[in-house]
Amino acid sequence: MRKISLIGIGAGDPDHLTLQAAKAIGRTDVFFLLDKGELKQSMIDLRERIIRGYSKPTRRMVTGRDPDRDRTPADYQGTVEDWRHRRALVMEEMLVEHLREDETGSFLVWGDPSLYDSSIAILDEVLARGAIEFEYEVIPGISSVSALAAKHRVPLNRVGRPYQVTTGRRLAEGWPAGVDDVVVMLDAQQAFTAHPDVDIFWGAYVGTPDEILRSGRVSEVADEILRTRADAREQHGWIMDTYLLRRPD
Amino acid sequence: MRKISLIGIGAGDPDHLTLQAAKAIGRTDVFFLLDKGELKQSMIDLRERIIRGYSKPTRRMVTGRDPDRDRTPADYQGTVEDWRHRRALVMEEMLVEHLREDETGSFLVWGDPSLYDSSIAILDEVLARGAIEFEYEVIPGISSVSALAAKHRVPLNRVGRPYQVTTGRRLAEGWPAGVDDVVVMLDAQQAFTAHPDVDIFWGAYVGTPDEILRSGRVSEVADEILRTRADAREQHGWIMDTYLLRRPD
Ligand SMILES: C[S@@+](CC[C@H](N)C(=O)[O-])C[C@H]1O[C@@H](n2cnc3c(N)ncnc32)[C@H](O)[C@@H]1O
Ligand SMILES: C[S@@+](CC[C@H](N)C(=O)[O-])C[C@H]1O[C@@H](n2cnc3c(N)ncnc32)[C@H](O)[C@@H]1O
Repeated sequence: MRKISLIGIGAGDPDHLTLQAAKAIGRTDVFFLLDKGELKQSMIDLRERIIRGYSKPTRRMVTGRDPDRDRTPADYQGTVEDWRHRRALVMEEMLVEHLREDETGSFLVWGDPSLYDSSIAILDEVLARGAIEFEYEVIPGISSVSALAAKHRVPLNRVGRPYQVTTGRRLAEGWPAGVDDVVVMLDAQQAFTAHPDVDIFWGAYVGTPDEILRSGRVSEVADEILRTRADAREQHGWIMDTYLLRRPD
Repeated sequence: MRKISLIGIGAGDPDHLTLQAAKAIGRTDVFFLLDKGELKQSMIDLRERIIRGYSKPTRRMVTGRDPDRDRTPADYQGTVEDWRHRRALVMEEMLVEHLREDETGSFLVWGDPSLYDSSIAILDEVLARGAIEFEYEVIPGISSVSALAAKHRVPLNRVGRPYQVTTGRRLAEGWPAGVDDVVVMLDAQQAFTAHPDVDIFWGAYVGTPDEILRSGRVSEVADEILRTRADAREQHGWIMDTYLLRRPD
């Protein structure tokens, strides 16, 4: 039976790799990469460094072309689902063509595969289509959220209290009900600026040599974060950032 | 300057250790352990196995007595805060007595230090008291939540949607507002049974050889989870379990 591993590799720091992930990389016969033209160089670098460091000499690499995706769609969820579906077709084709019956194939996933990542859903779709059979496992990774909290030395929750993980798009609709601690990912619009009275723990490129961290009351640090973010984005051509918002007691 | 590392070691699987954690363990001069009489044997085993595997031969071990804590308090938050304070005093004493100026001390933390763990708050309190100076870093770990999601091969969030992480105590007060996906930790009362119409992804002792996983519609699997949980708890003398609840679309 064909085997596939979805391997979480952490969100920037090569030392966030787990022993389990390193071992799975060492067992891999074929690495499948989906490359968007836009894929960030530091992501490609991390992936290559990790494959070089822990894979066996005979492993093969297969690169597929990631389907394009509308980045500012009217119907966000529908667009993402359509994109997933097209990715599933590309994945299926790669697997059918390049993974032999007795082989193990791997996909390296940024951060933790369980967090705002489509790889699990895509593999489930490939399986459901039935054109190819395989077993698959998911290997957890250090997420950008865990990495952010560690760098700021701050817990995600307060004693006995809940926290929410959400997107910039959702936060822009208002502070979520029932929680005082909110982690925000995928924020292209700096939705935190609407909440001057809370504390923010912000990080960009966390775990990489370009890491930037800022924290404080939003009213006091928002301008600096906006400036720093715009500068960094211009310098690198792209940015990935995450933050925790904490309502003071 | 004294250095301290709070090292996340994962929640049961020794292979969830990261390279960063293994390296930090290798640099450690003194491991500080807080032992409750009640500390679970498999937790002690994991900790010892990891120290044995990655520490230098000259490392020392210092064990302190973890203060007792009321497990069924009327005032949950106050009780936890008081317990933290007493732990800070024990930690301070251990550090003052056993960590020399130029040394590095470490605390091994179950799972990820940013998730329902008091170590960061305790070190902050020790620092604030001012009796001893040190620098400290937090090393993220694979949490029981990431491990659970990986084993069930299920994402924590749905496309573009938020999820909440909360406690059994909170869930018992009702389904949280504004989310359809809820991760529940620290649940001594099996609060999921009040939500028959949602899907549950449940795991106990995740990542250990005793791991148990169950999933399905709560109305269909709740009885079996309750039975399995009670049996396992009796057999081991204790249990740790976590679950994701997902409202169907
Ligand atoms: C598609 S999600 C993938 C998340 C990933 N699976 C994880 O566990 O971190 C991408 C978002 O993750 C966050 N992110 C990923 N890597 C990051 C990093 N190194 N620093 C800051 N944020 C990061 C950003 O919010 C970004 O918009
Ligand atoms: C005090 S919290 C600590 C959480 C830890 N810092 C983490 O990252 O997983 C303890 C709770 O974590 C969950 N937990 C920890 N280890 C677990 C495991 N191996 N399997 C299932 N649940 C676990 C249980 O809900 C337990 O009540």
